[in-house]
Amino acid sequence: MQDFVFHTPTKVVFGRNAEAQTATLIKQCGGTKVLVHYGGKSAERSGLLASICAQLHEAGIAHVCLGGAQPNPRLSLVHKGIDLCRHEGVDFILAIGGGSVIDSAKAIAWGVPYEGDVWDFFARKARHHVGVLPVATVLTLPAAGSEMSNSCVITNEATGQKVGHSSETCRPVFSIMNPERTFTLPPYQTACGATDIMMHTMERYFAPETDMEITTAVAEGVLRTVKSSVFEVLDNPTDYLHRAQIMWAGSLAHNDLTGCGTCGGDWSTHELEHQLSALFDVAHGAGLAAMWGSWARYVLQTNPSRFARFAVNVMGVPCDFGSPQRTALQGIEAMERFYHAIGMPTSIHELIGRAPTADELAQLANNCATVNPKGIGTLRRLGHDDMLAIYQMAQ
Amino acid sequence: MQDFVFHTPTKVVFGRNAEAQTATLIKQCGGTKVLVHYGGKSAERSGLLASICAQLHEAGIAHVCLGGAQPNPRLSLVHKGIDLCRHEGVDFILAIGGGSVIDSAKAIAWGVPYEGDVWDFFARKARHHVGVLPVATVLTLPAAGSEMSNSCVITNEATGQKVGHSSETCRPVFSIMNPERTFTLPPYQTACGATDIMMHTMERYFAPETDMEITTAVAEGVLRTVKSSVFEVLDNPTDYLHRAQIMWAGSLAHNDLTGCGTCGGDWSTHELEHQLSALFDVAHGAGLAAMWGSWARYVLQTNPSRFARFAVNVMGVPCDFGSPQRTALQGIEAMERFYHAIGMPTSIHELIGRAPTADELAQLANNCATVNPKGIGTLRRLGHDDMLAIYQMAQ
Repeated sequence: MQDFVFHTPTKVVFGRNAEAQTATLIKQCGGTKVLVHYGGKSAERSGLLASICAQLHEAGIAHVCLGGAQPNPRLSLVHKGIDLCRHEGVDFILAIGGGSVIDSAKAIAWGVPYEGDVWDFFARKARHHVGVLPVATVLTLPAAGSEMSNSCVITNEATGQKVGHSSETCRPVFSIMNPERTFTLPPYQTACGATDIMMHTMERYFAPETDMEITTAVAEGVLRTVKSSVFEVLDNPTDYLHRAQIMWAGSLAHNDLTGCGTCGGDWSTHELEHQLSALFDVAHGAGLAAMWGSWARYVLQTNPSRFARFAVNVMGVPCDFGSPQRTALQGIEAMERFYHAIGMPTSIHELIGRAPTADELAQLANNCATVNPKGIGTLRRLGHDDMLAIYQMAQ
Repeated sequence: MQDFVFHTPTKVVFGRNAEAQTATLIKQCGGTKVLVHYGGKSAERSGLLASICAQLHEAGIAHVCLGGAQPNPRLSLVHKGIDLCRHEGVDFILAIGGGSVIDSAKAIAWGVPYEGDVWDFFARKARHHVGVLPVATVLTLPAAGSEMSNSCVITNEATGQKVGHSSETCRPVFSIMNPERTFTLPPYQTACGATDIMMHTMERYFAPETDMEITTAVAEGVLRTVKSSVFEVLDNPTDYLHRAQIMWAGSLAHNDLTGCGTCGGDWSTHELEHQLSALFDVAHGAGLAAMWGSWARYVLQTNPSRFARFAVNVMGVPCDFGSPQRTALQGIEAMERFYHAIGMPTSIHELIGRAPTADELAQLANNCATVNPKGIGTLRRLGHDDMLAIYQMAQ
């Protein structure tokens, strides 16, 4: 096992009508002028935005609003947010939405006190954050885990780069989670979210060092819960209890709990997927589902007993004691059947609705290798040729 | 499921030689004059105390030392610590030890800025903490979970009362956990610690609302891990990996993670045990083991399927699908076999080395009922007669 630091200072307020505590919590955190940051129409349509603004108003907390955060949140909006915060003297940022809105808010929080371009942090030209504004969230889409995580992914639309940056300074000070706020999520987004949540744990589960039993056991519990709850909410979108399981799982899957004592995870599937969403503009969760099985088959030999354990303890495959290898393969197949059952693709073909061309596959591998010149993955280090082989398997 | 707040701001630094970071972490927290609080001879003998004091000295951090914290930490020492801190201008408290030392440190931290007697908080005469000193820990005994918890138990030796008080203000700012520091724990203390850790999770597991599946799954993972790791460390006290499992489990079992979405737990076994340790001065963990089976049999009917699930998922009992009741009972028996296997008692007789008298049993029940005039437990509310019946079952 590896040494680790576990630090999740985010205060989670979870339950029905939890968003009613927003103004109180902001006051406790010392916020006096708030940027309310959100995405598109759903926060407006649901009335959530208006009710929170009214709540702030009533509590005497000044605020300005900035909507428009998109999936793969853009640097241009981050710049706009930074300007707005400086102009208005904002000292607190409230993100209402999912990972995209929260990540956009985190980047704004870094940028406001920073003299240069906030992109410097993503381009690894700047490192130290000073005077970062506090960020809090009202979560409406469980998937990215950004509501408790230290990470932030921004797309620079001028250069076409989608880059992540992590810093302990961006863990939200509080996150409000009301499962009712996820009742209106469409089935596809629900399934993409569940896939992303499971993958955050699976990336850590399939790592080189797997001897931290308590972490493995917790991870398996998280995975089994999401796996069964997703069917319940697809059948009944207003099932509070199972929406709650998925919502809480989304935070636990990515707040580092499921990686304690491991090397931090493999993350190959994420890296392979990033190129898919960049080239085909697909949903992140669906892209992960399209790639995982091929990645898993490709690296299976590196640790068949780990994949066998996953098969038995997560997927409920009966153990073939004579052949961990066979058990492991059956686990991957079971996971792909699960993806299909919740409406997720297991190939690029299914993901984009047509077969990718050989040129596209080559481009995906080239892009992935360019972004990751030292390769990807920790369970097994993968270079350009491996990436190409996996994209071909997944076609 | 219940609404919940989850807030664990403690920064955990876990691994070999983690204590080398103590001074750096104190500086990051702004500590300039430190009370180094510890227990008995083991911190001196192991060299840990001296090495940390040397480290503080080298880092230019002024400090004073206060040893002598005992199991069931005393109010008189807390008073002494408060006086010392005021006199020396201490602004940071470092506890080196287990739950007793940490709880003593927490009470000192509350008392320093408080004008009245710190016992007011335990006697429910005062509520609001202002200006509490930050507490950090170097954990050497995994059991109480105080290194991440919001709770503190102090014994007022003048009145004979042992009372707990909880407040978010006492969660340690950081906790350093090096499993190597637990290599020298004797088998009995190791087993008592493991029992306490498991019980912190079991008290939450056997609660009225058990539909928060992710919490149940995580709890079962924690329990299974401790259950298997304790045999490994009893066989080989310097087994780093399994010492680490137990140490991390101790924090997860009591930092609220295993109770998210439940009512907060039953806690009857703890209440019943408190009277045992008060009357017979026994180790808390051993007292819990002595009581649990009798409590479990007494309340089994309230939720046999929960006990059956425990039997199958934690104790590995084969499920008797025709009789959850029988499965449940077998789970309790399996737990008692486990206690015996690690050297723990399953009766008061075994705990104190003789049969308790009828008078003693009556006194235990009376004391428990006096301390808890409204009864104990949430899975099933237990009054005086129930308490007496359980003490008699456990004799």
